[in-house]
Amino acid sequence: MEKRNNRKWTLASRPVGMPKQSDFRLVELPALAPHDGEMLVHALYVSVDPYMRGRMNDAKSYAAPVEIGGVMVGGVVGEVVQSNNPRFAVGEIVQGEFGWQEYTVTNGKGARKVDPGLAPISTALGVLGMPGLTAYFGLLDIGKPQSGETVVVSGAAGAVGSIVGQIAKIKGCRAVGIAGSDDKVCYVVNELGFDGAFNYRSTKNYVEKLKELCPKGIDVYFDNVGGTITDAVIPLLNPRARLSICGQISQYNVKESEVGPRWLWALIVKQARAEGFLVFQFADRFQEAAEEMAGWIKQGKLKYREDIVEGFENLPRAFIGMLGGDNTGKRLVKVGDASG
Amino acid sequence: MEKRNNRKWTLASRPVGMPKQSDFRLVELPALAPHDGEMLVHALYVSVDPYMRGRMNDAKSYAAPVEIGGVMVGGVVGEVVQSNNPRFAVGEIVQGEFGWQEYTVTNGKGARKVDPGLAPISTALGVLGMPGLTAYFGLLDIGKPQSGETVVVSGAAGAVGSIVGQIAKIKGCRAVGIAGSDDKVCYVVNELGFDGAFNYRSTKNYVEKLKELCPKGIDVYFDNVGGTITDAVIPLLNPRARLSICGQISQYNVKESEVGPRWLWALIVKQARAEGFLVFQFADRFQEAAEEMAGWIKQGKLKYREDIVEGFENLPRAFIGMLGGDNTGKRLVKVGDASG
Repeated sequence: MEKRNNRKWTLASRPVGMPKQSDFRLVELPALAPHDGEMLVHALYVSVDPYMRGRMNDAKSYAAPVEIGGVMVGGVVGEVVQSNNPRFAVGEIVQGEFGWQEYTVTNGKGARKVDPGLAPISTALGVLGMPGLTAYFGLLDIGKPQSGETVVVSGAAGAVGSIVGQIAKIKGCRAVGIAGSDDKVCYVVNELGFDGAFNYRSTKNYVEKLKELCPKGIDVYFDNVGGTITDAVIPLLNPRARLSICGQISQYNVKESEVGPRWLWALIVKQARAEGFLVFQFADRFQEAAEEMAGWIKQGKLKYREDIVEGFENLPRAFIGMLGGDNTGKRLVKVGDASG
Repeated sequence: MEKRNNRKWTLASRPVGMPKQSDFRLVELPALAPHDGEMLVHALYVSVDPYMRGRMNDAKSYAAPVEIGGVMVGGVVGEVVQSNNPRFAVGEIVQGEFGWQEYTVTNGKGARKVDPGLAPISTALGVLGMPGLTAYFGLLDIGKPQSGETVVVSGAAGAVGSIVGQIAKIKGCRAVGIAGSDDKVCYVVNELGFDGAFNYRSTKNYVEKLKELCPKGIDVYFDNVGGTITDAVIPLLNPRARLSICGQISQYNVKESEVGPRWLWALIVKQARAEGFLVFQFADRFQEAAEEMAGWIKQGKLKYREDIVEGFENLPRAFIGMLGGDNTGKRLVKVGDASG
């Protein structure tokens, strides 16, 4: 058996504001060997997602924080390279929450097999993985869009937002996106078929722009961003509007809690609802949702773009850049090649 | 037929911040006579409620603003003194949105008969009227409390809040109130049976106080107040908590939009929901709710207190005082005596 070294990115220090390269430490150790019932997985793609920023804080939340010196959390698509687990064979592709490391020993609990015949295996971290499922359930189950309604999504060119707008279109809605560059605006309108979008970095009056793009008001708002972008949506909500609160990326790296206008009164006069969710609450329906989305991809109704950074050593940089909005579509890091 | 004069309070100017006496004008004109199908109602009680503050602004909302020179809106319990409407007989007691005036000519649309045998007729403006129905539907249909859960209500000694806490108790919940004086705290705990309450005017650290009163966290928050009180509830929300947003009295009289900490992210990590409502959305179930509440009153499970100011001329003062929190229980103004 060849001797393998395992590189892993650990949390060196808790970031204040935007994470820095020095908040991460690259550690290299011999890879462990799988015991009975376990397997060794070689990482091929590692996901970087906004939620990881929250896990770097030492704060009580829905999930435990990453410990100082602990491996950064994250979804991985990898290849089984040794197996003492009868459920998984060497050469199979699996997806699991293995973290930012090249080799993982796991008993396979929580891991799922990825079918390379269905779609490129990297999609198990994107459109057919957690971000796609987040878009699917957050829009359909929390936002409950009806045909003819107007759906606005912030972070529209990101891994989640780009899918939200397309599912809104599939459901017969008007889809309007908010994104951080002209290229992203162009992408969601011209490639993904959104009805409209604007660049919040170059737009002065968000409310006016939204009025122009949403002449019939806003029925569903899918929020990935929060802050002043969300503030601008509030005055345009229609009666009985639904706000699906998925992320607040504008707030993750602020050093002091931000303040903003109080607008709870608007929920009263609009009889509107704001609901936060975590994709895990829909875990028992992941399979059906992924199958439906795979069908939409085959029919050409659902497009996706991957923004792939090469090299394990670039994980922190890829993550920090994504937090700053330098990605269009799902940001992934390619860290290895399949043996096949 | 005796000649009657009708006094009415009209809106003289749109208030900036807290309304002043001079924002209202008392006008006296001969009362109109009812035509065919109409009746003349003599007001006995006029309601003053927080929502009226919003109607004094020239802002687009769920209901049209009161015009300058127009009669102030408000619920009235009155006696039919002339009738050309076969549905209503002279001497009957009716409740309707007749506004701040002594005599109203109406075709009876939207008016309902009040049974003086069921409860004092003034309750048609309180526990068995709009405030009671607001508490009932806002708690049960929006907040969806389950037995054993903890319900927190702000404005706990007010017309709505005092009922919310008692219904929470009826449903097997722990009820905790937030109110603006020691007397109010004493009232909701000792007379109404809340499990705990605190005076926000004399309490420094709301979060610590809530932690003490809600050792198992907060499952339902019924918000009449907003602002810093609501901010303090957020960190203590349990997973899947529901916020029933009924009113924001702390914000109605601010001259500039207030800012506060952004906490939408908390809805995500708690998978929580904030929903605004207007009682009118439950109009088709008013009757069943009022009957159920009348039953609770008879069984001694639901208590109410009325805070009755005497004299039509005191309507603005009674309203302004209520906005400042000088009432315990439902604030009403007695403006006339029944003929019987």
